[in-house]
Amino acid sequence: MPEQCTFYKAAVITRSNKESRFEVKTLPLPELGPTDVLVKLSISGVCGTDFALASGELGPTCSILGHEGVGRVVKLGSALVETNIRLGQRVGVTWIRDICGECSMCLHDGGETRCAEQVHSGRKVNGTFAEYTVVPQRYLLKIPEDLTDEEVAPILCGGVTSYKALKTCGAVPGQWIAISGAGGGVGALGVMYAKAMGFRVIAIDAGVAKRQCCLELGAELYFDVVKEQNLLASVKKVADGKGAAAVLVAAGNIAAYQSAMGLLGPFGTLVCVGIPPPPQTFGISPIVMIDNGFRIIGSAVGTRGDILEAIDFVRRKVVRPAVMTARLEDLNGIAGLTKSGKVLGKYVITLGDDRKDSDQARV
Amino acid sequence: MPEQCTFYKAAVITRSNKESRFEVKTLPLPELGPTDVLVKLSISGVCGTDFALASGELGPTCSILGHEGVGRVVKLGSALVETNIRLGQRVGVTWIRDICGECSMCLHDGGETRCAEQVHSGRKVNGTFAEYTVVPQRYLLKIPEDLTDEEVAPILCGGVTSYKALKTCGAVPGQWIAISGAGGGVGALGVMYAKAMGFRVIAIDAGVAKRQCCLELGAELYFDVVKEQNLLASVKKVADGKGAAAVLVAAGNIAAYQSAMGLLGPFGTLVCVGIPPPPQTFGISPIVMIDNGFRIIGSAVGTRGDILEAIDFVRRKVVRPAVMTARLEDLNGIAGLTKSGKVLGKYVITLGDDRKDSDQARV
Amino acid sequence: MPEQCTFYKAAVITRSNKESRFEVKTLPLPELGPTDVLVKLSISGVCGTDFALASGELGPTCSILGHEGVGRVVKLGSALVETNIRLGQRVGVTWIRDICGECSMCLHDGGETRCAEQVHSGRKVNGTFAEYTVVPQRYLLKIPEDLTDEEVAPILCGGVTSYKALKTCGAVPGQWIAISGAGGGVGALGVMYAKAMGFRVIAIDAGVAKRQCCLELGAELYFDVVKEQNLLASVKKVADGKGAAAVLVAAGNIAAYQSAMGLLGPFGTLVCVGIPPPPQTFGISPIVMIDNGFRIIGSAVGTRGDILEAIDFVRRKVVRPAVMTARLEDLNGIAGLTKSGKVLGKYVITLGDDRKDSDQARV
Amino acid sequence: MPEQCTFYKAAVITRSNKESRFEVKTLPLPELGPTDVLVKLSISGVCGTDFALASGELGPTCSILGHEGVGRVVKLGSALVETNIRLGQRVGVTWIRDICGECSMCLHDGGETRCAEQVHSGRKVNGTFAEYTVVPQRYLLKIPEDLTDEEVAPILCGGVTSYKALKTCGAVPGQWIAISGAGGGVGALGVMYAKAMGFRVIAIDAGVAKRQCCLELGAELYFDVVKEQNLLASVKKVADGKGAAAVLVAAGNIAAYQSAMGLLGPFGTLVCVGIPPPPQTFGISPIVMIDNGFRIIGSAVGTRGDILEAIDFVRRKVVRPAVMTARLEDLNGIAGLTKSGKVLGKYVITLGDDRKDSDQARV
Repeated sequence: MPEQCTFYKAAVITRSNKESRFEVKTLPLPELGPTDVLVKLSISGVCGTDFALASGELGPTCSILGHEGVGRVVKLGSALVETNIRLGQRVGVTWIRDICGECSMCLHDGGETRCAEQVHSGRKVNGTFAEYTVVPQRYLLKIPEDLTDEEVAPILCGGVTSYKALKTCGAVPGQWIAISGAGGGVGALGVMYAKAMGFRVIAIDAGVAKRQCCLELGAELYFDVVKEQNLLASVKKVADGKGAAAVLVAAGNIAAYQSAMGLLGPFGTLVCVGIPPPPQTFGISPIVMIDNGFRIIGSAVGTRGDILEAIDFVRRKVVRPAVMTARLEDLNGIAGLTKSGKVLGKYVITLGDDRKDSDQARV
Repeated sequence: MPEQCTFYKAAVITRSNKESRFEVKTLPLPELGPTDVLVKLSISGVCGTDFALASGELGPTCSILGHEGVGRVVKLGSALVETNIRLGQRVGVTWIRDICGECSMCLHDGGETRCAEQVHSGRKVNGTFAEYTVVPQRYLLKIPEDLTDEEVAPILCGGVTSYKALKTCGAVPGQWIAISGAGGGVGALGVMYAKAMGFRVIAIDAGVAKRQCCLELGAELYFDVVKEQNLLASVKKVADGKGAAAVLVAAGNIAAYQSAMGLLGPFGTLVCVGIPPPPQTFGISPIVMIDNGFRIIGSAVGTRGDILEAIDFVRRKVVRPAVMTARLEDLNGIAGLTKSGKVLGKYVITLGDDRKDSDQARV
Repeated sequence: MPEQCTFYKAAVITRSNKESRFEVKTLPLPELGPTDVLVKLSISGVCGTDFALASGELGPTCSILGHEGVGRVVKLGSALVETNIRLGQRVGVTWIRDICGECSMCLHDGGETRCAEQVHSGRKVNGTFAEYTVVPQRYLLKIPEDLTDEEVAPILCGGVTSYKALKTCGAVPGQWIAISGAGGGVGALGVMYAKAMGFRVIAIDAGVAKRQCCLELGAELYFDVVKEQNLLASVKKVADGKGAAAVLVAAGNIAAYQSAMGLLGPFGTLVCVGIPPPPQTFGISPIVMIDNGFRIIGSAVGTRGDILEAIDFVRRKVVRPAVMTARLEDLNGIAGLTKSGKVLGKYVITLGDDRKDSDQARV
Repeated sequence: MPEQCTFYKAAVITRSNKESRFEVKTLPLPELGPTDVLVKLSISGVCGTDFALASGELGPTCSILGHEGVGRVVKLGSALVETNIRLGQRVGVTWIRDICGECSMCLHDGGETRCAEQVHSGRKVNGTFAEYTVVPQRYLLKIPEDLTDEEVAPILCGGVTSYKALKTCGAVPGQWIAISGAGGGVGALGVMYAKAMGFRVIAIDAGVAKRQCCLELGAELYFDVVKEQNLLASVKKVADGKGAAAVLVAAGNIAAYQSAMGLLGPFGTLVCVGIPPPPQTFGISPIVMIDNGFRIIGSAVGTRGDILEAIDFVRRKVVRPAVMTARLEDLNGIAGLTKSGKVLGKYVITLGDDRKDSDQARV
């Protein structure tokens, strides 16, 4: 390993009035706790949540956001000399940066993603819009070497979220899955995962551009929530007259939830994925649940094991996340495009000196 | 078998203005289809649903209601000579009298209770408030001999409903189950089944009388929805500070559903059992489902296999349904008591000449 | 419907010494019981089990074998006038011709395929190597119209067997499935189903011809049990160093079972499908089961619901059963080829006058 | 906390010829790694496995054995200052002392007990037959205060093993569970847990003393494997004529496994718990698995979450482990009694100066 520099670049959030902006600054490297590692990041995905966090509407944040990072361990905390972590190890840095390991959620099989004390990237600790970040060793995620940064980053949050929702939705391959919000970040990855997992996909979103996108990604059918007079009738008509075995609501609006129940076929499962602003609710009819054997579940990102499973689909090229690369300096531009709804696809920020500017798209 | 009589007694529903009344009449025995059997009933449970059906508020009905009957086969349809049904066989006559056997519900494992074409006792065919009834052989339920009629009848609807809800609720014995509406017919049986299945029971209902009843049946705790200032805080306080592993809503009112979500502990399951009048709904928050790993399911009575399992608890005396016996002539009186909320327990109607009047309570 | 003929052609089994032969005879149409229907068959698959049954080594049989038939209802039993079965309905006639509907197996959700009283095609009742056959209405399987006979017949036994084994194997799409005996009838369909269900397939069998076949059907890897020095090491090497998430033993020999356990990865499931001659057994080590979290299950054909799900894959053209057509008169020839191991693929017998000879391959 | 002493007492294993003996020695306190804690033990259970380990027949061991310890944290490693572990915290020290946290087993939901790198008490690190022991903080198990040491220690290994096997056996409360080896350490706890979880228990073991014990613990039936002419017929006769919904083989001999398969009822599950000396195997018949829908699984102790659940049964007094107390000096005596099969019940070693000799039984 080359000698560590002692300063690094990061996009720091500044808020004034109702405005929030990213400003690229040079900061001194943070101190390492004895069980932490220092990660030199080479990429960070950009997620819609980052801009919601930036605006402050989701509560207080750290000054550095970002939660889909890939990089390498460049320094070990003093207590980590004899552990199974090595300098140079490639790692992923995700939304969940640490868990308590001992609450009733953590002690539940597969419950780590619901840890009541979980530490979020950009909330309690600085995020991945930076050249370096500090991660506790015990929740470190080792990343295989045979994929590019651009392939890995989008899976660390959106990819695993859609994969885990499909893995637990209870449908059998060959059955129909409806994805509401299929043209968004999580939804589009969901279409690809669903197809790769043997499901038949009904994509639901708004607009012609998203139709094109969803069909190319593998959806068999696309319904436009705006144009379609009777979404329910349309879905039931195509899915063998019955409805979908599962509906994933990837959209973060409550109207999508309200209409989703109607799309379910016998013994179908509604999977809650997208998060409308609390305390919004959608209405459930007990007799409808009882007569149809319906099930409603919530799915929260995925465990480290789920992430590795999700990445494996990308390694096999059966899921192909498409990204547009940018630099830290472009974050304000991307934020603007996002707000005006003009982003079709996913941005990733490339980090570090070895990244040539010419590799990067200009926003 | 003695020679069949050709007439039988039944409680026939008559409606005039907004009033409905049961009138005991003597009717000619019905014709048997080639694959039907004639059952001579010795008992019929009385269920709250019967009075709702009687009032007409749940739509059109047959003239004879009742759906918790026990009796014996006394005549076989012409096509049933060589089948495995015999004269004298003891059988149960339940809410579901027949299923189509070929819809997507029926073809789903365990899906018979959701058959879209199911025939209901008292709706499409005459019910069990009668000395005789006609049942298709293919959905016949054979009943073991070593239990009394009074032990079997309450299980055929309310008992199996609560048992099936517990069987599928996902909780592990030793965990807390909250039962909302624990003092009602289904709820009280649910308390007994839950205790016998190793669960710890929090009973939720209103009033002192029900408190006494629920605690005697095996609940460890009782919360009065009227008196308890903060139901949620109370439940979470006792259930190891976490909430219940499952909440069964046996009550048929939407307020019970709305408060039930708050009682769930980590990865808990809400089981919809009671049926508030459609189209009432309760509100679900996606982020609450996601962050807590909650699950909502509907449970619909139980299959014939479930009924036999549920009856076995009664045979072992670990569930002890308590009933008050009455006659067909008493149905109007029981209806009156039910309307005024004065029934604490379950009535059954004893049927047939061999039943002595002295065995029966007067209403 | 045209008037029924009163005689029909069938391949009747005759045994003398150690020899069994099929002889095409003309027989009078059988009597219909009141709840039976008469089915005019247009096709019957030929299964290896038929020749095992023919030899008498599996115990006594009827004189007409065959259990993968497709045809139409041409006559209803006297008691079926008002039921939901109609003349002209297309139906499938499978290995399980009837169930008791009331044993502890039948009353278990999805347990019908284990009914202790089940009636087998060719065992208790005449099979489908015939122009007509009699089927009880209550276990009738309606077949959709939009597939050819040749597409449906192979699914009724081998197809649904492999589909059901995969549906219950516990693996998640994207994981590796090893199929032992992948070049046989059930195994080859299993390769196609597994691929269509999103699994990655390791095919295991013997010989170069089967390698070619398995890889064309969708297997990613093929291991030759004869040539491969160390099957276990090979499988573990490719499946991410771990082994398979599930192993389906479609082969009917005990050696395949014995080696299958070694192919399992962490928390893997061995699915018993093929049937070595009883009372042969394979050895299980308790500590291996405990340390690895292994699971062993048995899978038995599939329910009528499973068959319809399995057929749906064929309708979508993601599973494409390949068949060679022949006539009843060719059964002895096919038997000979089968015995000498020269059959690569599946034969079906076309039935009825409307089948032109020119459509059929000569054996 | 009082000042730490720098020496402690421990039972050290010494082997000469074929003899192994425990010798109580005074040793210097071990060094703490930066992420370890020092635990002052107040009790250690004695398990049959300890003597097998002592003999050397299970491979090399540390000099201090024991794996069912309870104590308090008295010193923190240098890196643990700001973590959620505090001095004085009560903790359990179990068979699994540490896991890697990143192998495919660890990353599988609930897979920690199969970690390929797991560190065992008495194997890679010194065990709990000592006044102090060193434990990595990340796998620490916090123990509630409201139970005695004698109640907790037996659950940490034998108790959780039987509880987890029952939790995952797939049977529904009310069904029959057969426990083979019911009179042993794990088996006897299994009888208590099974009863508390609503199952009906058939205990299987040898001898009159064990009969008495099993029936007192809650078994409804006891079968003596020596006296019973036909174990299979006996079990099937009582369990409603069908067999058990699950059989737990707690016995560590292969004959118990071989006969266990015959005791299973429809869709029953055999749970492998006891460990016969490898490479012993028992024989499985594929057709028996297929026709009956059987399932075989392995169960390995339990996670930390499972241990806390298992302890909760003891807190509620529905499982009451009975122990005999002894001192470190008594281990050779207990070993002798164990070898001669004269131990009926479980010994625990009380540790520390505050334990008065008068509280302890003499061996």
